[in-house]
Amino acid sequence: MSDYRAPLADMRFVMNELAGLGELSGQLACFSESTPDMAEAILREAARFAEEVLAPLNRRGDMDGCTLAEAEVSTPAGWKEAYRALCEGGWGSINLPAEHGGHGQPEAIGVAVKEMMFAANLSFSLAPLLTLGAVEALLACAGPEVKAAYLARMVSGEWSGTMNLTEPQAGSDLALIRTRAEPHPDGSHRLFGQKIFITYGDHDLCSNIVHLVLARLPDAPPGVRGISMFLVPKRLVNGDGTLGAHNDVRCVSLEHKLGIHASPTCVMAYGDGGGAVGYLLGRPNRGLEYMFIMMNVARLAVGLQGIALGERAWQQARAYAAERRQGRDALSGAAAVCIDRHPDVRRMLMLMRCQVEACRAVAYVTAAQLDRAQAHPDAAERARQLALAEFMIPIVKAGGSEMGVEVTSLGIQVHGGMGFIEETGAAQFWRDARITTIYEGTTGIQANDLILRKLLRDDGAVARDLSGQIGTVVDRLTASPRPDLQRLGTRLRSALEAWTRATDWVLAQAGPNLAGVLTAAVPYLQLAVSLCGGWQMGRAALAAATKLADPEADRAFLNSKLASACFYADHVLPRAIACAGTVQACDADSIRLMAHDWENDDDK
Amino acid sequence: MSDYRAPLADMRFVMNELAGLGELSGQLACFSESTPDMAEAILREAARFAEEVLAPLNRRGDMDGCTLAEAEVSTPAGWKEAYRALCEGGWGSINLPAEHGGHGQPEAIGVAVKEMMFAANLSFSLAPLLTLGAVEALLACAGPEVKAAYLARMVSGEWSGTMNLTEPQAGSDLALIRTRAEPHPDGSHRLFGQKIFITYGDHDLCSNIVHLVLARLPDAPPGVRGISMFLVPKRLVNGDGTLGAHNDVRCVSLEHKLGIHASPTCVMAYGDGGGAVGYLLGRPNRGLEYMFIMMNVARLAVGLQGIALGERAWQQARAYAAERRQGRDALSGAAAVCIDRHPDVRRMLMLMRCQVEACRAVAYVTAAQLDRAQAHPDAAERARQLALAEFMIPIVKAGGSEMGVEVTSLGIQVHGGMGFIEETGAAQFWRDARITTIYEGTTGIQANDLILRKLLRDDGAVARDLSGQIGTVVDRLTASPRPDLQRLGTRLRSALEAWTRATDWVLAQAGPNLAGVLTAAVPYLQLAVSLCGGWQMGRAALAAATKLADPEADRAFLNSKLASACFYADHVLPRAIACAGTVQACDADSIRLMAHDWENDDDK
Repeated sequence: MSDYRAPLADMRFVMNELAGLGELSGQLACFSESTPDMAEAILREAARFAEEVLAPLNRRGDMDGCTLAEAEVSTPAGWKEAYRALCEGGWGSINLPAEHGGHGQPEAIGVAVKEMMFAANLSFSLAPLLTLGAVEALLACAGPEVKAAYLARMVSGEWSGTMNLTEPQAGSDLALIRTRAEPHPDGSHRLFGQKIFITYGDHDLCSNIVHLVLARLPDAPPGVRGISMFLVPKRLVNGDGTLGAHNDVRCVSLEHKLGIHASPTCVMAYGDGGGAVGYLLGRPNRGLEYMFIMMNVARLAVGLQGIALGERAWQQARAYAAERRQGRDALSGAAAVCIDRHPDVRRMLMLMRCQVEACRAVAYVTAAQLDRAQAHPDAAERARQLALAEFMIPIVKAGGSEMGVEVTSLGIQVHGGMGFIEETGAAQFWRDARITTIYEGTTGIQANDLILRKLLRDDGAVARDLSGQIGTVVDRLTASPRPDLQRLGTRLRSALEAWTRATDWVLAQAGPNLAGVLTAAVPYLQLAVSLCGGWQMGRAALAAATKLADPEADRAFLNSKLASACFYADHVLPRAIACAGTVQACDADSIRLMAHDWENDDDK
Repeated sequence: MSDYRAPLADMRFVMNELAGLGELSGQLACFSESTPDMAEAILREAARFAEEVLAPLNRRGDMDGCTLAEAEVSTPAGWKEAYRALCEGGWGSINLPAEHGGHGQPEAIGVAVKEMMFAANLSFSLAPLLTLGAVEALLACAGPEVKAAYLARMVSGEWSGTMNLTEPQAGSDLALIRTRAEPHPDGSHRLFGQKIFITYGDHDLCSNIVHLVLARLPDAPPGVRGISMFLVPKRLVNGDGTLGAHNDVRCVSLEHKLGIHASPTCVMAYGDGGGAVGYLLGRPNRGLEYMFIMMNVARLAVGLQGIALGERAWQQARAYAAERRQGRDALSGAAAVCIDRHPDVRRMLMLMRCQVEACRAVAYVTAAQLDRAQAHPDAAERARQLALAEFMIPIVKAGGSEMGVEVTSLGIQVHGGMGFIEETGAAQFWRDARITTIYEGTTGIQANDLILRKLLRDDGAVARDLSGQIGTVVDRLTASPRPDLQRLGTRLRSALEAWTRATDWVLAQAGPNLAGVLTAAVPYLQLAVSLCGGWQMGRAALAAATKLADPEADRAFLNSKLASACFYADHVLPRAIACAGTVQACDADSIRLMAHDWENDDDK
């Protein structure tokens, strides 16, 4: 199994040339110190942590997994030491505000740090990711006492956090949550219920675990408007900050999963011994709203996971293909050449690389939009950037995760029979990637979000903003003197036209043919993913062609980037046209035919 | 986890309406008893065996796997009883000639029996599949003494067979085989070497195991023209047919694999104790040729495995979606509806079903071509059918296996978070399916076979025969009074035109731009897969529309078939056009750009 090497050259290129980090630190006062030089220093340190501390534990963690004994979960060997190093480096709090002990860096830098950690060891990195989500929730809705008691120790990593949403009958549909919270005379509450799929619900890395739990108050209205958020610590915290008694919450079992074996996925029981002490966060019945505040960053993170696993799979496949000798060279006839001489192996490696690079660029650009949405001096620009970022989030999440599954599968394929043997490690990336199209909202839910919440809410205004930006890139490419860029521009224009046709169709059909639009939702999202990847690869190609004029430039890197962009245009962008054809086929006739078939099935 | 139910209605429809079983048993003397009625009886019995005996062992087998102790492999609990039932039913020898104890049924019936067994329990079914391959090799090349000593007991299943090709340095490239065979004064040979990835290389189901081993004689020329085939029994066979001493062959380890856990994948050591007794089969240095004799049937079988796992994943996903309540109905607003009310879940289920049906139809039609190629009274027709079947084999193999991975992944997706939990069973289908795009020749090797051996060898003549047949279906569809069939015809015509463009491009570029053609090989194959699926779904739709006029017909089934065919046209056929765009983009410029990039990579 090959080592992981953080792709610093590409990360740097994407941050500086595409996400505009220099401009961002220049314009946004709160990120004035987050210059490209600062980013470089952070990335180098983060790479060392990911490569040297996290990556070596990844395979062993997959094999050993976590164990549960007497309601306590033990993590694999080496996990505790790595967690200590995480806390010392502050890698879990890179984006958190400095006033609470974080590093206050923009998301445009944070994405790269997260990508490295996910690539090195996804199972491990979910622990700080969940804590980060819990901290952001507390920042958004906790009162000053709770903040004082919990925040600093969660930001430092001394305590970890979890999110408790899912119940056996309530997965994607949180309206069905049944866990209840009863008021207690002291102002706290007592919680009763079972939660499932709780990532790091228990573990041995911290002295305390802070559970954020969705539950219903006795007088809560039914459905999603009756859900409140509670803080339930594993161990109660005394007035002086010391740890008190164990709370009435425990892990009753661990799931046996397809992947991320070393991330403990817990079934949590609340209140079996009389009631778990919980503290209401924010206002009653607003729990779901608070959850949604974290949604953008959480979904962006899952998209990054697909990108990270794709990158790692690509690195390993490339290394294997450069060493494994098998078969004759079709052109020279030489025997037993390295398999990266074979055209189809090159095709697979290029298909892996160009998609990872495209999705990375889209994700980092979206992260910079979130930074501008938060901190741009101009309110109108903040609003525009937020609208763009919110439009992009489902594209980043679904695009990165679906790409991760495809690319890790190609990684197995490059290995041939060895890819099916677990010792090689290629299979783990594929198994680990498989969860990313499911958690934090399935691909189908991302597609519904894109259409129902993002596209239709402003009748396509943000989509038109996006189209305009992509159109500008098309114009610059087709006006280039370079034939490769012209061709890229032609391909991108075809994809943009396909997107315009599909978007017009969706906007027109949403009223009369909602079932058709929702059937077309995932193909529409897939179209957007291919197109947005082409948009950023087009921008990358333009930047690379310009930089090639600089005699100091890294010509090998820039030519690779041009090759990636052109390959993407020829091998990925054509999918956009197929998707548009499928979207426009979801007319009322086709939906009737499908529904009719369902009724037949029901008859059986 | 849901039970497996053999899809008898669809199998029957495909056999009779598309593969022409009635015509086949009418025309081919050796299959005169294989009437549709006979097929029905066989299918019903095979379904019972698959559903009641094999399917219940599948999940347990995945969890427990096989174990190795003192060079002997033990299969999971229940395996021996199932194997006995297999032998009693004769399910391993359904296609073998009656004069050797088989049932003498055509491949067009055999495919359905195999599909059921693979769907019920792929790991188990590899045992009889490997024996079948070994028997076919013996039929092709063994002398009368070997046949007398081994054949009957292998056909009955009393002894099993294996194929020993791969070595650590020789996977796809058998030219690199090093195992050597030294002549012994008694006319036998002594073999020395290590073989890997040997399916059922050892197990406890039979009293003896007959290994067919590729090895080199001392005077063999290098490369693939110096490989001979030997029979090496696990236990030597005495002159009176009783079992003698253990031979010098043993299993030294079992691979830890991503899937098919209950199929023992063995590392086999030959000759560690002085030399394994082996018997030369056929003529020296002809081993690879003998292997290729079995290739068509073996590759067809692997395509069936993808279809089988896709079918099973679809059945389970459909059952889950009909029970799991989650989310509001987008149209009626009803709360907590079964998830098969959600348009995107329906889309996924339809995408699963229509692709399974399309690949099944293509596979069964190809099986009938093999039957005609073997037994048609007219020699010219035999030759034509063989050429067609050989053209289709890589399409069936790669198409069925790639589809199997896609569809089992959709099966996980329909389950949401539960799909990632191993207890559900959905993940096993996906893990098991992943080997099918690798063994018996990877998808890349299938694509090279399609282009280099099948398309170019007759300068596109078979491809034109195929195009003509598809064009006839287009004409019939577009001439139909039904608007749904007209639309299907229009879509199929677009795909056929894309295929024609791509084929012309490949034929023109093969000389000047071989690297480009080989880069385009998999996209070209993917195009063929989508198109051929559409061809058979078009034929299916025509047959279904005709049969609907019969008042006795199963209207629910026929309307479902029409819905599948139309859905396939809208959601799968557009991929063909994207593939054609990619094929035609593999011009010399694009290959130069990619190769240049490689050289840069090499510099680093």
